Amino acid sequence: MQINPPYLMFLGDVPDKLAAKTAYGIVDWRRDWCLGQVRLPGCKADLGIPDMSVKDAAAKGAKTLVVGIVNAGGVLNEAWIPTIIEALESGMDVASGLHIRLGTDERIATAAQKHGRALHDVRMSDQRFATGKGTKRPGLRLLTVGTDCSVGKKYTVLAMEKAMRDRGLDADFRATGQTGVFISGRGVAIDAVVADFISGAVEWISPAGSPGHWDLVEGQGSLFHPSFSGVTMGLLHGAQPDAFVVCHEPTRTTMRGVQHPLPTIQEVIDLTIQCGKLTNPAIKPVGISVNTQALGEEEAKTYLAGLEKEHGLPATDPIRFGVEGIVDRVLADFPATKTA
Amino acid sequence: MQINPPYLMFLGDVPDKLAAKTAYGIVDWRRDWCLGQVRLPGCKADLGIPDMSVKDAAAKGAKTLVVGIVNAGGVLNEAWIPTIIEALESGMDVASGLHIRLGTDERIATAAQKHGRALHDVRMSDQRFATGKGTKRPGLRLLTVGTDCSVGKKYTVLAMEKAMRDRGLDADFRATGQTGVFISGRGVAIDAVVADFISGAVEWISPAGSPGHWDLVEGQGSLFHPSFSGVTMGLLHGAQPDAFVVCHEPTRTTMRGVQHPLPTIQEVIDLTIQCGKLTNPAIKPVGISVNTQALGEEEAKTYLAGLEKEHGLPATDPIRFGVEGIVDRVLADFPATKTA
Repeated sequence: MQINPPYLMFLGDVPDKLAAKTAYGIVDWRRDWCLGQVRLPGCKADLGIPDMSVKDAAAKGAKTLVVGIVNAGGVLNEAWIPTIIEALESGMDVASGLHIRLGTDERIATAAQKHGRALHDVRMSDQRFATGKGTKRPGLRLLTVGTDCSVGKKYTVLAMEKAMRDRGLDADFRATGQTGVFISGRGVAIDAVVADFISGAVEWISPAGSPGHWDLVEGQGSLFHPSFSGVTMGLLHGAQPDAFVVCHEPTRTTMRGVQHPLPTIQEVIDLTIQCGKLTNPAIKPVGISVNTQALGEEEAKTYLAGLEKEHGLPATDPIRFGVEGIVDRVLADFPATKTA
Repeated sequence: MQINPPYLMFLGDVPDKLAAKTAYGIVDWRRDWCLGQVRLPGCKADLGIPDMSVKDAAAKGAKTLVVGIVNAGGVLNEAWIPTIIEALESGMDVASGLHIRLGTDERIATAAQKHGRALHDVRMSDQRFATGKGTKRPGLRLLTVGTDCSVGKKYTVLAMEKAMRDRGLDADFRATGQTGVFISGRGVAIDAVVADFISGAVEWISPAGSPGHWDLVEGQGSLFHPSFSGVTMGLLHGAQPDAFVVCHEPTRTTMRGVQHPLPTIQEVIDLTIQCGKLTNPAIKPVGISVNTQALGEEEAKTYLAGLEKEHGLPATDPIRFGVEGIVDRVLADFPATKTA
């Protein structure tokens, strides 16, 4: 899936910020790709970028209308249809992270066909992949893994991409989830792929690279999460990471959506190495990334210092303290890392 | 997916036995469900059951025409269409393990709708599942795991179902692959499920049972297979087995379709316990099942005796020597096992 920037962000009539979570994530990391926002009457979210008509955005070169709305029910709101059709008529593609395909609405499907535009349903995967081969590919790869879902795996690799690029290093974020796909303009929502092709899809997402180049692969789920461990396992074997960062949220007591306690960071390190060595015998941890939002500043520092001592790895909160320590460790452990 | 027996087996014009592999598997295990076979001119396979017209099969009560053909290219052969349509017109459902949906042919789709019959595409999964919950369900469960793909996981659980039922025990085969779905009349081809729902689909396949009842769950892939480990991991966590049997083929040097060497039986036991205890802390091995086809009789016996001694588990070739030893171990380890 290749989504072309620049984007016009469509928020519809969302009742709150949370319902536009994907759109906020895109603006956070790709502000320069986002020309403006379209908001309908009643919209309670604001991305802090210019309000803009579809016509103006098209004139300014917008290539894709991004439907940055989370809708639980899986319904295409009737009020959104005219904006989507206007974008297609203005020569834009339309990309959506909704639980329903854009093309299920006859009017949208017809307009896309008539104007020769693409409809991207980021949550769905129509693409055919090969099964994973598991053979070592050139290039370096880092994967984020976690003690649970939603513990900062995407944020951590995006922060690392920024920090590494700021130092002139050759590194690319590789998306495996829907918000990530919008942020990179490419990728696959790996949890939407047919089970047989999980690792094969990851091999497609992160193909052979040049020596010294880093692919920073967005992790998903946890090997210890009873709902999503299969996705995590296939992702680990497909990404064949040289390095991994463990992500954690210290105040959570049970894993997201289930009753199971979180594993320890050490358990995640051990099982990731044990399983990961199947496709990369040299796999090693290079850092720990913690969401310390629930802790005070001093408490967070003490906690992170304790983790560093316990595991012999740089430990940080990417939002509070940056990821420079992890990048330093990557450079120390992988001297072949090259500049862009 | 619920496929209603009795079946009329359709072999089309397959060029050899291998192209009718699924059909042979069904007749092997469910001879009494198979009323007869329909073969077109040029067909080189013979299931050893009566040749029968669609009309005669319908009169004898056939409920489903099973397209028991493996086609690599994913094409619906034009020569097959009239038989499929005649079955629908005669009041039968049609079930297929082809790589292409039956309904993609307009004439088949129309006939199914007109006569109110079901089209089952066993390789595809349209069903919506919940994500796995991972909470312990009542009833006992056994899963086959393996050092590789295609090492007898389905055969082993089917042999165990037969042996346990012959002893009057309450046990059901639970299918997770396409041939298995035809054999049980129910189940899901787990490798065709969307990645996020692997363990949830297994929870649906093997729901809460009565205490002392065994679900014998067909395993898939291997935790050590770089192409399919995600499927295996989700299956393990969804099945939450009390007991598992390791399946192996001793002459194979690399895993199916890839260059990786096979893991040892001990490695499979260890990783299965380590990962499986997440949803069932009491998980334990109860046997080793080996395809000894490539070994002489004495050689096979010596090899199996060596495995028994090394692992302290009953080791057998189900085809050559039966699975009574494994059933004995199940009864010894799980005295709550009940009679049907």
